[in-house]
Formats: sequence, C-alpha cells, structure tokens
Amino acid sequence: MEEGTEIIGTYFIIFAGCGAVVVNEIYGSITFPGISLVWGLIVMAMVYSVGHISGAHFNPVVTITLTLFQHFPLEQVPIYIAAQMLGSILAGGTLCLLFDISQEAYFRLTIPVGPHRRSLILEIIISYLFLFVISGVATDNRAIGELAGITVGMTILLNVFVAGPVYGTSMNPARSIGPAVVMRVYEGLWIYVIGSIVGTIMGGFGYNLIRFTDKPLSELPKSTSFIKTLSRTRSNAR
Amino acid sequence: MEEGTEIIGTYFIIFAGCGAVVVNEIYGSITFPGISLVWGLIVMAMVYSVGHISGAHFNPVVTITLTLFQHFPLEQVPIYIAAQMLGSILAGGTLCLLFDISQEAYFRLTIPVGPHRRSLILEIIISYLFLFVISGVATDNRAIGELAGITVGMTILLNVFVAGPVYGTSMNPARSIGPAVVMRVYEGLWIYVIGSIVGTIMGGFGYNLIRFTDKPLSELPKSTSFIKTLSRTRSNAR
Amino acid sequence: MEEGTEIIGTYFIIFAGCGAVVVNEIYGSITFPGISLVWGLIVMAMVYSVGHISGAHFNPVVTITLTLFQHFPLEQVPIYIAAQMLGSILAGGTLCLLFDISQEAYFRLTIPVGPHRRSLILEIIISYLFLFVISGVATDNRAIGELAGITVGMTILLNVFVAGPVYGTSMNPARSIGPAVVMRVYEGLWIYVIGSIVGTIMGGFGYNLIRFTDKPLSELPKSTSFIKTLSRTRSNAR
Amino acid sequence: MEEGTEIIGTYFIIFAGCGAVVVNEIYGSITFPGISLVWGLIVMAMVYSVGHISGAHFNPVVTITLTLFQHFPLEQVPIYIAAQMLGSILAGGTLCLLFDISQEAYFRLTIPVGPHRRSLILEIIISYLFLFVISGVATDNRAIGELAGITVGMTILLNVFVAGPVYGTSMNPARSIGPAVVMRVYEGLWIYVIGSIVGTIMGGFGYNLIRFTDKPLSELPKSTSFIKTLSRTRSNAR
Repeated sequence: MEEGTEIIGTYFIIFAGCGAVVVNEIYGSITFPGISLVWGLIVMAMVYSVGHISGAHFNPVVTITLTLFQHFPLEQVPIYIAAQMLGSILAGGTLCLLFDISQEAYFRLTIPVGPHRRSLILEIIISYLFLFVISGVATDNRAIGELAGITVGMTILLNVFVAGPVYGTSMNPARSIGPAVVMRVYEGLWIYVIGSIVGTIMGGFGYNLIRFTDKPLSELPKSTSFIKTLSRTRSNAR
Repeated sequence: MEEGTEIIGTYFIIFAGCGAVVVNEIYGSITFPGISLVWGLIVMAMVYSVGHISGAHFNPVVTITLTLFQHFPLEQVPIYIAAQMLGSILAGGTLCLLFDISQEAYFRLTIPVGPHRRSLILEIIISYLFLFVISGVATDNRAIGELAGITVGMTILLNVFVAGPVYGTSMNPARSIGPAVVMRVYEGLWIYVIGSIVGTIMGGFGYNLIRFTDKPLSELPKSTSFIKTLSRTRSNAR
Repeated sequence: MEEGTEIIGTYFIIFAGCGAVVVNEIYGSITFPGISLVWGLIVMAMVYSVGHISGAHFNPVVTITLTLFQHFPLEQVPIYIAAQMLGSILAGGTLCLLFDISQEAYFRLTIPVGPHRRSLILEIIISYLFLFVISGVATDNRAIGELAGITVGMTILLNVFVAGPVYGTSMNPARSIGPAVVMRVYEGLWIYVIGSIVGTIMGGFGYNLIRFTDKPLSELPKSTSFIKTLSRTRSNAR
Repeated sequence: MEEGTEIIGTYFIIFAGCGAVVVNEIYGSITFPGISLVWGLIVMAMVYSVGHISGAHFNPVVTITLTLFQHFPLEQVPIYIAAQMLGSILAGGTLCLLFDISQEAYFRLTIPVGPHRRSLILEIIISYLFLFVISGVATDNRAIGELAGITVGMTILLNVFVAGPVYGTSMNPARSIGPAVVMRVYEGLWIYVIGSIVGTIMGGFGYNLIRFTDKPLSELPKSTSFIKTLSRTRSNAR
C-alpha cells in the first residue's frame, strides 16, 4: 500500500508542521525554533516509520527528481503525486476544522516578506541543498544509509531555521498547495512551486556531478580519509 | 523482572516529564520547548536502557494495542498495566512531597484550554501518530529497529510541541491517571483516557492496513527507492 | 593512556558545561536550555571520542559504581578518580583565568535554592536515573551499545533541565569539587557529593535487580515484544 | 570530484551558518541557540551526504592537521584548501547579494567582544576540542565511526554555544576569511586564523598522545569497561 503510505505520511508532516505554526499563532509557547524542530522531526519520524514501505517521498519534487535520475519508476509518479496532494489537502482541512484560521498568514505560505526575487532564489538554494543531501545519503550506497532519516530531517530543520523568517520556506509543492487550496489563497504560491522544482532538480544534478563512480570501495583512492574508518568498517560488515 | 522494569521506567518518565512542568511553573527557566524536549528524551533514554528487558511499553495503550495486534501475550497485560499505573502514581506522589503543588494546573492534565471536542480530536490524532510510528519502527522487521528509541522519543516530543499548548496532551492514560489520583482531580480526565485509547488502536490498525507483507526484502518491488540503499545494506549485513 | 584520557575528557566536560554557565552569566544569549544542551552534548562527544580508550567515566561515582558491580578493576580506581579531579580543577582554573568570576553563583554549585533536604533528594533521584541508564546501555550486552553516548548524554541533558532550576544539579562529585576548590567555596558542597554517591550506587543496584539474566537472546521469553525486532536484527548480525 | 565536493560542502556550511546570523540580525526569530544549532546540523548533514566522496573536511585546518598526522596525502592539500576558500567566498558573496549587509557585525567575525587575548585562548581551546573529537571518532578504528557526523556536528554546536557570545568563534579559517574577503573587513581576523591553526594542531597532537596502540581490540586490557559492550559487539560484527 505505497499510495496509502504516502497519503498518511504527507498528512502527518503537514498536520504537524502547519499545526505547529497555527497553534503557535493562537496559543504561543512553541516559538519559531520549536516550529523548525517539528518540521525536521516529523519528516525524520515518517522516514523511519514507513520508509521501508513507500520510500518516504511525501513530496512531489522528491518523486520527480528521483525519477529523473532513475531511482524511481516513471509509471508510479502520477499516483505518488496524487497521494501527496491528497494527504496535504486533508491535513490542511483538518487544521481548518479544528482551529479558527481567519488569516492566511497562519499557514505562512503565501506572503513572502521582502522582494519575490529574494524568496525565489532562497527557495532554489535550500531546495538544492535538500535534494543534494537526499541524493548523498539515500541514493549512494557508500553513504551510511541508516542515518538518512536523521540527516534529511535535520537538513529540513536547518533550512527552515535559516530561510523561515524571510519567506516561510517550502521545499515541497504539496506542502504549499494543500493549505493554499483549503484556504483558497494562491498569491505568491508560484514562488514556492517553481522554486522547489528548480532547486531540487538542480540539487539532484549537482550531486550526480560530484558523485564519483559506482566502483566498489576498495578501488577508491586513498584520499577519502576523514570517513575512511566508517567506510572500511561498513564494507567489512557486508 | 519485567514488571519492575515497567514500574521504574514509567516512574522516571512521569517524574521527569511532570517534574519539568512543575519546576518550570515554580522556578521558570525550562520553557515550554524544554518541557517538550524532556518528555521526548526520557522516553528515548528508557527505551534504550531497558527495552531489552520489558519491551519498554511504560503505557497501557501501548500494551493494549500491541496485544490486539498480537505482538504481546494477553496474559501479561494486567500486570503490565498495574505496573505502569503504580509507577505513575509513585512519581506523582514524589513530586507532591518535594514541591508545593497547590494548583492542579501544575500537572497540566485536567484543564483543557478551549472546547473539549477539539482536545479529544487532537488527542486521537496524536495518539494515532504515536502508535503508527511505534508499529512502523518496532514491529516491522524491515525498519531500522535500532533507531526505534530515537524515533519514538522524537515523535512524543513533536506531539507535545504541536498539541501541548492547546490541552496538555497525554498519549498515555497512566501519565494522566497517576497525577490525577495523587491530586484527586478528575475533571476532564476522560478526554485523555478515551482519546489515547481510541487513537492508539486506530493507529495500530492504520499501520496494519499499509503494512505490505512479511515477504523477504528481495521480493519487494523496485519502487521502494528512497531507502532502498538502507534496506539493501541491512539485508546484506544479515 | 587511560589516565590522560580521563583528565582531558573531564577537563572538557567541566570547561564546556561550567563555561556555558559563566558565559551566559556575563554575556547572556546561551539561555538555560542552551546550558543543559551543552552539558549533554559534551558528555556525548567525549564518550564517542575516547570511550574506546578509557571507558569514558569522567566521574568518580561512575568509576566507583562500575567497580562495585564488577565492571571495572579495583586497582585502577584511585588513579581514575585522581585524574578526574585533576581535570575538573584545571578546567575550573582555566575559567577563572579567562573570566572575571567574582560570584560563586557563576558556577551554580553551592547555593541550592530552597531547602537542603529537597536538593539532596533530587540529587539522589537524578543520580539514580543517571547510573540506571548507564547500567542499561553500557553494561548489558543486550542493549544497543552503539547508542550509549547519545543515551547517556541525553539523560544528563534532561536531568539538568528538570532539576537545574532548583539547585544546579551535579551527578558528579568531580564537577562540584573542582570549581569549589578553585573558588574556595565549600558551602552546601556535601549535598552534591553525598547525593550523587548515594544515588548512583542505588541506581546501579536498581538496574541489577531488574536485569534479567545473561542468557542468550534466543532463550528470552516471548514477552519482550516492543524491541524484539531490534534485538532479533542485532543477534542475527552477530 | 573531491574538489567540487569540498567547494559545495563548504559553500553550504558558510551559507547556512552565516546565513542564520544574517537573517537573525535582520528578521529575528532564529535566536542564538538556533544559530548554534544550524552550525552543528549543517556540518553533520554535509558529513553524511558527501563524507564518502571527499572525506568531508570543509576546513583548511582539518586538512592540514589530518595531513600532519598522515591521514591525508600531502599533494592534495593545496587543491583542498583552495576549494574550501572558494566555497566560503562564494557563500559570503551570495549572502551579500541577497541581503543588505551594511554592518560587518552581521557576520560576527571580526569584532571580538572583550580583550583579544581571551578570544585567542578560547579559540585555541575550542579548536583543540574540535580536532581532538575528529581524531577520536574519525581516525581511530576502535571508535563508532558511523556516528562521526553526529559527534563532530554536536561538538561544533556546543563550541559555538560556549564561546559564541564572547567573540563569535571560528574553528575554521575558511569560515572567517571568506566573509572577510567579501566584506573587505580584516580587523581581528588574525585571531581566528592563528587560533584555529594552533588549536587544531595541538588537538591532533593531544589525541595522538593518549591514543593507545593500533593493537586489535582483543588485546586491549580489561580496564576499558564502560564501552566494552559496544566494542565487543562491533568487533563481533566484523
């Protein structure tokens, strides 16, 4: 049930992340660092809970980029994206039913502070970093794959920290489109959709430029010293 | 000594979590994000310290749901729940002896802010997420089980972050009943007990709906791409 | 060079932890949650950096309790404790040379807020938890030993969070005695020394009460369900 | 493409870390603990993403010290340092283009608060700790190398926490020189460059003093008790 997994996973990511924004807006206490932490931890929790079922995309641009670089079958792309959109819309709807969200600012998604150009460039940069990290930890078999969930979650956390105060951040069109559909506020939405698509594709491309080869580790040159111990231990364990 | 383990583990979870609430109320400094962190970290610490002895339930609804889905023997349920209740009551009692807790608000357990319906729905949703994550990381042998403690602890942390300012959160009847018994304040207690039971059973059921099969990994379809590397490494290591 | 390792490790733990207190007192910005984080992370970092050399005690009561339960040779106890004391005194001295510490409160070690009895009981409880966790993750071969550093570090972090605002916390006589010697302030010091010794010995004893047997995992009863997957994976990996 | 990896990795470390400082200065919300967290997490993310390609130095003094202790080939040093400097300058330039950085304080790199001597000594101590930890977790095959990224990242985090309010911290000449070149502000820069070089070389030397031998684990004396379980498990797994 990979589609069901993507629905539930995306649902909880949007419910927890946007929920933290909404609750902080109404009740306070969570603080901006707390909101960033929630975004990072819910993605980490979902990767470790259901990564073995659906691959833990929860994000159309992850699905698209992994497909472009042939880590995901093309025929499954539409159903994955549909599932992610559905999960996000359901989560936005749940929050609307539970809380009195009169201001679109509650979702912090459509009102970038400052010029659009800056928001677009920032979204491209952090989306690049996001998919660069995913490519490294989850598609390269020399990486310590068990820590992919922690690494990807913490990358989201730090991206929200750095760029959040400027324009909200997205890195995920489903995250932006879902609540936008529910609230019927589409102003500035293109920034997040275009920015995250361009950034993630560039990030996947960037990693593939520096990715060495698929040669077995023993043939790698001696210069990979820092983590050499790690790699050696792991290759022995295989 | 599984019962003793459940008593001690539940004791320290309630002592640390409710203790952080009480100390923050009296002395300040901890802040709400700090309280959330304590709840998550004490559960993580207890899972890694004694998970290999008792299974690290510390929570009647975890025991009940795991039994329903046949991950735990029925005959041990009563003694486990009794141990968890005892641990929680002892922890509540210790805090009462140490600190001057005149207001039931100190335990933040019986006075939901806002309408009861909202608190009940939120408790069901976060308890669903809680047991969905446990089912994924701790009952599915395709998951990275070593990280179960971190994943479950961080899920509790983010649940407290998101829902804590609204009504306090529970996800654990022992956590709510123990201090309630000690303080003799039962107002609103049903919300936490019913909500956590309904939510966790639904969460366990939800995971079993999407759980694929118990087929060995090599037979899984190629679509599980994202964490494929992880899984492959792990299956090789076996 | 185990003694040198204990000197350096204890030095950095005291330097970073007490340094965070001092710098926060003079410059602000770190905040109490930040101080707690520093205490937890420096212990974690030292365990992973030199645990394979000296065993990463950095604390006389850890050395004493591990010796009592026969996880450490008696003849090495004096040199370990001497090394830990030396490291702590050197760290306290460094901070005194670098910063203008006129108030003993800067070290937050000798002025418990509120009654001594409460501080003593709290110190015993958190020291119990501290050594209970160490016994679980680091002396029981059924635990996930690789995560010992994270688990112990996070236990210290949460203990400082919960009890720090009340009386400062110690869990480590070297941590209290070192700066006390440097500042020549001994008021209330006995609370931290007696409390941590009594608590850790009780904690080690407590874990040994619930520790099951040393039977191989395959003979354990089926009831250890929650982390069963973890254990099974690990035992297969061996 | 190890040089490309060092450029990209250093770019994102400086972009995220200094970006958090700049955004916090202009928009607020991130707070000093948040900035510290970003510095630690971006290094951790980069180590796990590309450590298997370039060794994840991102720092001239790491490259220099590893070379001194023969963990890195001398002939690659110049290209690595050039790549790190380029990455840092590009990141500083990106931030200048995106944000209106009129005050050099935005980078918090050249205006140490208080006397220069204190800043220099602190920089030496934390750089010592930084490379001591790297030597332990990443060059010693008895350590749990898989956790090197977490351990090194958290060490940076705690170093920034402790020393950040005093003078900003560096531990990395590229981090200080890049933004300085972009802003053309060189006042006090020598403190960070000299301090980090002296400290890291001393730290590498310090670890090599206590490093035991390269004897296989089974020949180690019985006194390494605390983490014995870890080591034993790992050596069995090999």
